Amino acid sequence: MTMPSAVWRDVVRIREAAPLVHNITNYVVMNTTANALLAIGASPVMAHAIDEVEDMVRLAGALVINIGTLSPAWVDAMVRAGREASRIGIPVVLDPVGAGATRYRTDTAQELGRDVSPAIIRGNASEIRALAQADATTRGVDSTHSTEESVDQARRVAGQYQCTVSMSGATDIIVSRDATVRVDNGHPLMPRVTGLGCTATALTGAFAAVNPSAFDAAVHAMIVMGIAGEIAAERATGPGSFWVQFLDALYGLQESDITTRMRASDR
Amino acid sequence: MTMPSAVWRDVVRIREAAPLVHNITNYVVMNTTANALLAIGASPVMAHAIDEVEDMVRLAGALVINIGTLSPAWVDAMVRAGREASRIGIPVVLDPVGAGATRYRTDTAQELGRDVSPAIIRGNASEIRALAQADATTRGVDSTHSTEESVDQARRVAGQYQCTVSMSGATDIIVSRDATVRVDNGHPLMPRVTGLGCTATALTGAFAAVNPSAFDAAVHAMIVMGIAGEIAAERATGPGSFWVQFLDALYGLQESDITTRMRASDR
Amino acid sequence: MTMPSAVWRDVVRIREAAPLVHNITNYVVMNTTANALLAIGASPVMAHAIDEVEDMVRLAGALVINIGTLSPAWVDAMVRAGREASRIGIPVVLDPVGAGATRYRTDTAQELGRDVSPAIIRGNASEIRALAQADATTRGVDSTHSTEESVDQARRVAGQYQCTVSMSGATDIIVSRDATVRVDNGHPLMPRVTGLGCTATALTGAFAAVNPSAFDAAVHAMIVMGIAGEIAAERATGPGSFWVQFLDALYGLQESDITTRMRASDR
Repeated sequence: MTMPSAVWRDVVRIREAAPLVHNITNYVVMNTTANALLAIGASPVMAHAIDEVEDMVRLAGALVINIGTLSPAWVDAMVRAGREASRIGIPVVLDPVGAGATRYRTDTAQELGRDVSPAIIRGNASEIRALAQADATTRGVDSTHSTEESVDQARRVAGQYQCTVSMSGATDIIVSRDATVRVDNGHPLMPRVTGLGCTATALTGAFAAVNPSAFDAAVHAMIVMGIAGEIAAERATGPGSFWVQFLDALYGLQESDITTRMRASDR
Repeated sequence: MTMPSAVWRDVVRIREAAPLVHNITNYVVMNTTANALLAIGASPVMAHAIDEVEDMVRLAGALVINIGTLSPAWVDAMVRAGREASRIGIPVVLDPVGAGATRYRTDTAQELGRDVSPAIIRGNASEIRALAQADATTRGVDSTHSTEESVDQARRVAGQYQCTVSMSGATDIIVSRDATVRVDNGHPLMPRVTGLGCTATALTGAFAAVNPSAFDAAVHAMIVMGIAGEIAAERATGPGSFWVQFLDALYGLQESDITTRMRASDR
Repeated sequence: MTMPSAVWRDVVRIREAAPLVHNITNYVVMNTTANALLAIGASPVMAHAIDEVEDMVRLAGALVINIGTLSPAWVDAMVRAGREASRIGIPVVLDPVGAGATRYRTDTAQELGRDVSPAIIRGNASEIRALAQADATTRGVDSTHSTEESVDQARRVAGQYQCTVSMSGATDIIVSRDATVRVDNGHPLMPRVTGLGCTATALTGAFAAVNPSAFDAAVHAMIVMGIAGEIAAERATGPGSFWVQFLDALYGLQESDITTRMRASDR
């Protein structure tokens, strides 16, 4: 069962250990996900050159791969880094941004799923459906499906790639082949800020770096994400101030925030 | 004649339809223009891989091409996407960032103007002059000419590329071959924030996605841009807080803001 | 001796002349360093295409080279631009981000140090140690050494590349072969925001564009950086609001801020 104390323990571990999170991610969110990782207490690095990704990932506690603005040279680096990470036991978190929107994205996401042995795949419902080769209609990078109607597909992806699937939406649903957790934290302003999904992926990397259970790491990251979003929304007057407050909320997060706000159910 | 009610109608359409705006843009503004598009109610996607730009643009309501940090592979993708957009009738907005500063930028901007049939070209006065092959001295990406002294060149560009030209400055001047609108909304803090011109271009894409008249879309976008800038400036203490407030102002924009603040003249 | 009036004179010069600072920098900080340069009064341009970097740098008052997300094509452009800048006497500021973390970064940083004749190298202690080929353990892009224990290495780098070395940390230490200044301005929140080191490098470029002494430019930039950080921290509730306030503080900086807050010693 998901306990607030276990979520908090991971936050404390991140703050104490400041794990290096190696990101090969998209241009849109490089700055914002680096800031989110710093705010929670991790140490982000962005590096994509084929000549250094293996060296870099060996220093890291987790590898985050995000195909938001993919191109062939970047995908090569993702594969190279991901294989090395898997070989030496560093958890890989894969965000298949926009899978389902174009064939190139769907194919690349599936290829990465096979080649880099992700511990966690984190995406919205449409992206997860595209990986499941189910009916997936995506509008660009936004989902047109709810998470609730996509649980079967998420479970299929978890089985297919032998990983945890963290599917975000109004309700976040995290599944493995035999477990399911629903997280109801969050706020409607969150999809009005670019890259919040990518931020969830990056934070998931930080949690995976300190928690040996990929499933628990994914759950804890989504809880912290949602709670920080709620705190930020209470202080914001729109999406601009929301992002500022979100970083401050991550940075200032206290155990009582988790205890009083967490809405997660193991069903 | 430009009516506040027509501007507002476009804002409502954007909020209701959430048109997908496909951006092939520069690294500096990917995050900020995505956030501006989300704040006004559109759905941004950034994608530049030659393997997917045609697939992506077919899902979009408008294509925004911005050469701010151009390189040959990106220009290839811009041409590919722009041609497909024109072929199937999706409006293209071209921002010739820095045309006039280097020969490579000027040549590329002219080549794109010819190859992608933009519905709207949006730039500062120096950039428009460079496209008109007039005397164009640019300092990097900032204009050294006023819009008022560049109206003839804007008209020439409109004729040459058979498009609307939206030229931003202290007074924004939007011209087609036979119409002219001047917009006096805006605030002096705006040029102290990076990429506000690129934001205007991105928003123009959102308006072009919902308004079949490219000219009206360009005018309405500059009015909304300027009014949001004025609201933001009233709440800001410098360029950092300005940007935060600008996103909040776009998100919270009301019809009365347009009615009371709009300063546009058809002359 | 470092005088507040000399620092302020440079700020005034930047605001009056708005020098063009050409940046070939990393994806993470393109937006934020452009905003910092605009806030202090300079005019930033980001351009990296091999076809235009020489044309662009000839328009500039300073060139900033930052290897934060390096790859071979970008390094080629850095070398090309840096050589042209040196040939015509435009100061080059080099930020060897992450040198010491991977062999590729260390080699590239050393190669750039030799090839582009930087006037100033600005980095953290680990990066400077990597350039000195001293024991350099880097965790990604964060330093594991203090500046105080790395002064000898900084002096060696200054001699080796015949440049000023500006080494940032809790105490910033700026050295040439025969001079040393320590700057104690700054705030612990600063390393919790991504790219603050890169921002220091960019601002150093603006100061180098208006001050013929590279050493003084480096010192003045770090003082302004630290003081703006202190002002921002007083108004911030975390790293999100810190960055907003930092830009506002740079923009609103007054002579009295420098007079009352400067903590620099020539020892």
